[in-house]
Amino acid sequence: MKEFIIKANKAVTNGEINLKDLPGSSGRLDLLCRCVNSAFFLSHDMRRDTIFYSVNYGDPNPPVTLKFVGSELKRVSPDERSIALFIKKALEKDATELWKESTSGIYSSKREFRDIILEKKNEGKRIFYLHLNGKPLEDFEFKDDEDFLFVLGDHIGIGDEDEEFLEEIGAEKISLSPLELHADHCIILVHNILDRLK
Amino acid sequence: MKEFIIKANKAVTNGEINLKDLPGSSGRLDLLCRCVNSAFFLSHDMRRDTIFYSVNYGDPNPPVTLKFVGSELKRVSPDERSIALFIKKALEKDATELWKESTSGIYSSKREFRDIILEKKNEGKRIFYLHLNGKPLEDFEFKDDEDFLFVLGDHIGIGDEDEEFLEEIGAEKISLSPLELHADHCIILVHNILDRLK
Repeated sequence: MKEFIIKANKAVTNGEINLKDLPGSSGRLDLLCRCVNSAFFLSHDMRRDTIFYSVNYGDPNPPVTLKFVGSELKRVSPDERSIALFIKKALEKDATELWKESTSGIYSSKREFRDIILEKKNEGKRIFYLHLNGKPLEDFEFKDDEDFLFVLGDHIGIGDEDEEFLEEIGAEKISLSPLELHADHCIILVHNILDRLK
Repeated sequence: MKEFIIKANKAVTNGEINLKDLPGSSGRLDLLCRCVNSAFFLSHDMRRDTIFYSVNYGDPNPPVTLKFVGSELKRVSPDERSIALFIKKALEKDATELWKESTSGIYSSKREFRDIILEKKNEGKRIFYLHLNGKPLEDFEFKDDEDFLFVLGDHIGIGDEDEEFLEEIGAEKISLSPLELHADHCIILVHNILDRLK
């Protein structure tokens, strides 16, 4: 199982989403839509072995965590606008401690970024933090039967405190490229590394 | 220099683009927008050493070839809607034999898919055809100072005749993954291979 989590510092936390302005007033929701695309869409197929979390810290009601479960997703198309419509539905529900399903495979809850990561750590998953200054990809060995959580930042980054937290829990800091890449592009690269193990 | 070309079998060939329906009535224009994103966007930067061509064969006026030149692009944002607006402007111009610039770094002309590929071949570029059934990536050697053209298909593929043409001109058929990937995801993987040579 491959899981991804992004800290979305500015992403909106209610359903007031202007579909004509995903980057601006919705707090870079376009990036989240592309992350969902990267996480799940194959040509004529979907990745059922993947879960993607977006922890939104934008106004007016942070945090809201969205969870996308590949094995349950239905009717989602790969384009940003279609994905944004599903995110809008999820954010229209009042988020509470418990996961609430809005449409098939898409859930929301009121959880913090660190809570999700700690939960995955306690489940025994191997935690990677993707960062330009991490150790190069070639220094790591991946096994096909391992369970992974990959931690991603948005255009702002996850911040010093969360970086320290990741270090404390033993997250492995990995660099996929000598260039600074968008989170959605990193997801593509991670999938490819794991696909080619098979 | 890295160049990419996609044969977009259904992509619209005039400016009548419904921004609320890029996948349907515009003939998978959403995919082209994501290809432009993948070809050029880095976090807080753009790839200036890349050119991307989309050869549109949809109604009403096929073919129209769009050319995006990384070193000249200005004001384009990474989201699909913003890129689609620039494509709309380019397709509003009547395409002729000569390249016509619509906005900075974006050109259109009335050229065929094979014409562009042959032009690049004659310029001495190494031509790769990305395909699930190609030889695996590990079988190839890339050099940092080579010039490349990577040929991509859309959800329909490039068709038997164009596949034969590519074979005749000595294109190298390469597979990046054991899974069938979207063209925009392939662009990310190609960039990463070449970035890591440096």
